[in-house]
Amino acid sequence: MTLANRSLVTIDDFSYGEIEALFNLTDEMSGAMDEQYGLCHGKIMASLFFEPSTRTRLSFETAMHRLGGSVITAADVGATSLAKGESIADMARVVGSYVDMIVIRHPWEGAAKVVADYSGVPVINAGDGGHQHPTQTLCDLYTIKKEKKTLKGLKIGLWGDLKYGRTIHSLIFALAKFGANILFYPTPGLEVPEHVLEKLTMEYGGELEKYATPDTASKEKLFPLDAIYLTPSSPHQLAMMPDVNLQVELKTGIDALYVTRPQKERFSAAEKGEELREKYPVVDKKLLRGREFKKTLVMHPLPRVDELALELDTDPRSMYFKQAARGVPVRMSLIALLLGAKDAAIPQEAAPSIAYPVYRRDYGPRCPNQRCVSVQETEVKYLKPEYKIVNRNPLTLRCAYCEHGFEPEYVASSDWHEGKTATKKYHSASSHWADKIRPENLIVFRSNQDAETLGFKPSRYVKIRRRRKGTQK
Amino acid sequence: MTLANRSLVTIDDFSYGEIEALFNLTDEMSGAMDEQYGLCHGKIMASLFFEPSTRTRLSFETAMHRLGGSVITAADVGATSLAKGESIADMARVVGSYVDMIVIRHPWEGAAKVVADYSGVPVINAGDGGHQHPTQTLCDLYTIKKEKKTLKGLKIGLWGDLKYGRTIHSLIFALAKFGANILFYPTPGLEVPEHVLEKLTMEYGGELEKYATPDTASKEKLFPLDAIYLTPSSPHQLAMMPDVNLQVELKTGIDALYVTRPQKERFSAAEKGEELREKYPVVDKKLLRGREFKKTLVMHPLPRVDELALELDTDPRSMYFKQAARGVPVRMSLIALLLGAKDAAIPQEAAPSIAYPVYRRDYGPRCPNQRCVSVQETEVKYLKPEYKIVNRNPLTLRCAYCEHGFEPEYVASSDWHEGKTATKKYHSASSHWADKIRPENLIVFRSNQDAETLGFKPSRYVKIRRRRKGTQK
Amino acid sequence: MTLANRSLVTIDDFSYGEIEALFNLTDEMSGAMDEQYGLCHGKIMASLFFEPSTRTRLSFETAMHRLGGSVITAADVGATSLAKGESIADMARVVGSYVDMIVIRHPWEGAAKVVADYSGVPVINAGDGGHQHPTQTLCDLYTIKKEKKTLKGLKIGLWGDLKYGRTIHSLIFALAKFGANILFYPTPGLEVPEHVLEKLTMEYGGELEKYATPDTASKEKLFPLDAIYLTPSSPHQLAMMPDVNLQVELKTGIDALYVTRPQKERFSAAEKGEELREKYPVVDKKLLRGREFKKTLVMHPLPRVDELALELDTDPRSMYFKQAARGVPVRMSLIALLLGAKDAAIPQEAAPSIAYPVYRRDYGPRCPNQRCVSVQETEVKYLKPEYKIVNRNPLTLRCAYCEHGFEPEYVASSDWHEGKTATKKYHSASSHWADKIRPENLIVFRSNQDAETLGFKPSRYVKIRRRRKGTQK
Repeated sequence: MTLANRSLVTIDDFSYGEIEALFNLTDEMSGAMDEQYGLCHGKIMASLFFEPSTRTRLSFETAMHRLGGSVITAADVGATSLAKGESIADMARVVGSYVDMIVIRHPWEGAAKVVADYSGVPVINAGDGGHQHPTQTLCDLYTIKKEKKTLKGLKIGLWGDLKYGRTIHSLIFALAKFGANILFYPTPGLEVPEHVLEKLTMEYGGELEKYATPDTASKEKLFPLDAIYLTPSSPHQLAMMPDVNLQVELKTGIDALYVTRPQKERFSAAEKGEELREKYPVVDKKLLRGREFKKTLVMHPLPRVDELALELDTDPRSMYFKQAARGVPVRMSLIALLLGAKDAAIPQEAAPSIAYPVYRRDYGPRCPNQRCVSVQETEVKYLKPEYKIVNRNPLTLRCAYCEHGFEPEYVASSDWHEGKTATKKYHSASSHWADKIRPENLIVFRSNQDAETLGFKPSRYVKIRRRRKGTQK
Repeated sequence: MTLANRSLVTIDDFSYGEIEALFNLTDEMSGAMDEQYGLCHGKIMASLFFEPSTRTRLSFETAMHRLGGSVITAADVGATSLAKGESIADMARVVGSYVDMIVIRHPWEGAAKVVADYSGVPVINAGDGGHQHPTQTLCDLYTIKKEKKTLKGLKIGLWGDLKYGRTIHSLIFALAKFGANILFYPTPGLEVPEHVLEKLTMEYGGELEKYATPDTASKEKLFPLDAIYLTPSSPHQLAMMPDVNLQVELKTGIDALYVTRPQKERFSAAEKGEELREKYPVVDKKLLRGREFKKTLVMHPLPRVDELALELDTDPRSMYFKQAARGVPVRMSLIALLLGAKDAAIPQEAAPSIAYPVYRRDYGPRCPNQRCVSVQETEVKYLKPEYKIVNRNPLTLRCAYCEHGFEPEYVASSDWHEGKTATKKYHSASSHWADKIRPENLIVFRSNQDAETLGFKPSRYVKIRRRRKGTQK
Repeated sequence: MTLANRSLVTIDDFSYGEIEALFNLTDEMSGAMDEQYGLCHGKIMASLFFEPSTRTRLSFETAMHRLGGSVITAADVGATSLAKGESIADMARVVGSYVDMIVIRHPWEGAAKVVADYSGVPVINAGDGGHQHPTQTLCDLYTIKKEKKTLKGLKIGLWGDLKYGRTIHSLIFALAKFGANILFYPTPGLEVPEHVLEKLTMEYGGELEKYATPDTASKEKLFPLDAIYLTPSSPHQLAMMPDVNLQVELKTGIDALYVTRPQKERFSAAEKGEELREKYPVVDKKLLRGREFKKTLVMHPLPRVDELALELDTDPRSMYFKQAARGVPVRMSLIALLLGAKDAAIPQEAAPSIAYPVYRRDYGPRCPNQRCVSVQETEVKYLKPEYKIVNRNPLTLRCAYCEHGFEPEYVASSDWHEGKTATKKYHSASSHWADKIRPENLIVFRSNQDAETLGFKPSRYVKIRRRRKGTQK
């Protein structure tokens, strides 16, 4: 099996076995960095960064140079022809006709998928808005694995801005894939988005316990534990235990604490107004003085601002500079695999990914996430709304681009009304009719107005709700 | 013969035979892209982009990397020392002392010529304001030739903004050089500039027929045919035919339709105010449904905005992504030839270029084109006004930098007045005296004030016109 | 001996012998530029420019490419993660874990030292604010040496903005190190900063003669000679001569005139308001028509604006384009040496550098230079104030980062007051007590308030001065 010509848009694109194979190659390359030069001679990587970045871009470019390849760079949002109103698809097709691989960072969620769909070459997502940052996740996972030998059954704490940190979103799924338990310590108000948690429990089989009144007994300055995800293979069957046992279990120690910077650049106006610094306690030696942090790896995707004390830099638990340094060999092995310059011995897959039914209609509805690539002015011309139907009760669609979830209020069936105006009826999504519509016939509406605009009439039993905004999750 | 150490500033810099030789090398390289790596090992190209661009820059840089060469890049207008008030000549001399070749894009018309004049290394113009973009033209020509085998006698339509599109200006001369006929379909108000048309007919020998009341019978949504250039070798002798025959001839089919984006960034304030979108019909399948478009190549230099429908992307007539992709091998062969890494078998030239007398005086007049490099504050210090005398009746000067034409109103002779104040007389440029002045003695003035400022008196027969602006064409 | 793994932050980091060895290698490389390709294959240089620059950056990148190495570039201040509030140290550690060498330009004075301290790889300062620009100095020195064979005993004039020109500050020490005499011709108001002159006389052993009423007899349009530095080995013993003899000596000729651009981007508001152009005479052929300029090398670090006439470009005395061109081989040999790709035969050192006692206290005082890296918001978190005690009478501290000097007003001794509150007394820095405090016990204060804030009481003899701003020199 080979990873050649594949793309890495979300961390789900790689199976457990593929990631393990990539880590094995990373080990091999790390031990002989100088010997990799020449592996990608004559290959060209386009490094397209439509958001400010130094670290990630330089890490990718270093990786390609260490393999002996060449790099062409567009690092400046404003100074590009995209500003002239060009679509991402056009750009992807053109650049894809020049080079052998594209690395893309973009502020719109799902943009990397568009590049992968249109460029015709392997694409690596270097961060697409608040969606995902899968190569950062690979560096994170690799670091935990190097230090703890395995991820299985570990307790990993996620700390800080869990709402906007795209590294967090990728990491959650990867940890679950590798059988780790996840402890959520969000800054109040910056909790993990619902659609991420839903995908987590739906696809990775573990249990999520949320704390309605979170953990007020927690130590001063520690964020309260907001939720815990328990991996299905958890040996301690924590999920079965009452809270008091959980506290006991946690006292045995947290294996890693993943700290994040408040992503102020993505904050809403209201969030910007709040005094975040007060709400964002600094992770320092004092906070980490408890027994439970004795063997905790202190991690951070960097750059840090004030959320992680400088005194930890010399602490043996601190891993963040190692994480950064490992970015080069991890990305080297990824590039070499996708370009087919190396082959990987990929073990048999544990579990295939879930094949959800696809919902795709020219007339909508549009994804309710305003940062989604599919709703941008230059992209709506060619990107049709596309969703996975991830749940029927309640009916839930997940955007194929940004993966935001969305529950339509009304539905109809293309089968029932075909050709007959009199039968063009719409129903409440929660009605018993809705469940009976086959996926390929399903038509969804975010509001009764949307349905009526398209010529549908309310069914006899439909309950028209007052107009409200589409529930965005 | 060799192209080594030559520059490509305007498309006129290469003869028909040289372009054919370059295309042959492009064919060769296209067929064995991987084998070109190493051809330019140790050579360095400076990629200097003083205007936003991604596509063209990345194409050039890819080409150099595919040849195994190195690239240094300055891609940001604002962040350069030029902002400190340095002249282009100084910059060119310094960068020319570092590298083996310079690729330059600059907003000032004629800037690439200045870089070529001062750098001491081969220079490629990657677009200088609204003047020329010769490598885009090479990609365009190469694409037509690949698809239609020859350009001779073809009918090529140019569509949209023919005023500011620099790709159009280069392309017109190249098409004429290769014996194609040109049909002009400009957006009303964005017609090809007069000085381009004049050079076309003056130097390429064909006939230009302009339609005073253009072609109102044309189909709905089609731009009216504004003018037609008939190549001298045109087998059908279209030039001799009445309009009705032309319509018949056109019905046999247009070989390529070259669509352009409105170059809004160069529009005057008045032009910006107009509702362009309304005036700029979208080229789509419906517009191209007629018989005459059955075998038409649909071309576009990209990026496109709204002027070319996405539905054409999958149409077999659409060539624009191929044009872009071919940019790499075309530029590879160009770079290899100019660096002397490859030699070209250049056939005997059909026609040598015209050697016009040169007009060059320290005291002017300055080029009337405000976008010309020669009138910019940092450049007037060292760039003397320089023109070709391309016509005597009416007396017409063509700027050596931006190629804008200009008809001076008054003239004098340096021979007649030499040393004698009493004989320092100026004459109307249209007078019979003017024709008798030898080019090396000619002195021209844009106004009688200019003449009198320099100490000349009106001759007895001169007709002083009311001051008006210099006719800029 | 080897220069491998060393950094070049200030020109003092290299001894006379090391610079000579570098120049010998430069000679060797200049003579065989094509043969150096491959010397640094597989090595990666990070080119980090946090201030606009084209020339210097392209020169470094060209040098690395000529050696066959690879380059990763961050050329844009705004578009970097530093803007997110990251410290220079964090950035340096991360990038240092990717690459083999860092070239850094930064607006803060002393920033390159921080990068060198934290990155773990060789670092080259490509300009840090108004502090130093040592590789420009190497190009300057190399050019003079190539043209005049030696620097010993030469008379080098420095012309124009001697206050903000960082190239000037590096050059002064290098000229002194090589035994040249220096003539200062500053634009009035833009004289060399005091701390530079102090370091010059203190460490290089020569004499500085300043002219209170500078040289009003100087020729029209010539800046007045403001000061002269006489190298200790000066054969003519100019220092012993009265002014009239100096004039005679100068008539024998100035060996080089180093012209600089007014560094308007660093001017204070008051300086910007003045009509500089009037005060900044153009160096042209007329100004250089005197006998004393007959064999003068006309030098300039470029870019120039209006201070150097274009007519000199073709004058055999003009050296500025040669200086720029030599930047490539000089930087090639520097990179090759620091990366250990070449070894240098370094002669025995003439004089070791002076080992000043170090002053370093957590609680201050902070460097009074507002452009110093050590006082910036993101850096104070981890950079402790650090100084060299370069003089005891008057007590003078020199910042370890920006090298600005500073005379504290009050002192105390950590030995005398240890543990006993009653003896926590502070003294005037100029008192006879101050001299007796051993460097390792010395505590300094910029004001009596600072002392009292830290719990010190005035000693019986201390003279409290009215609060005034710390004397910044």
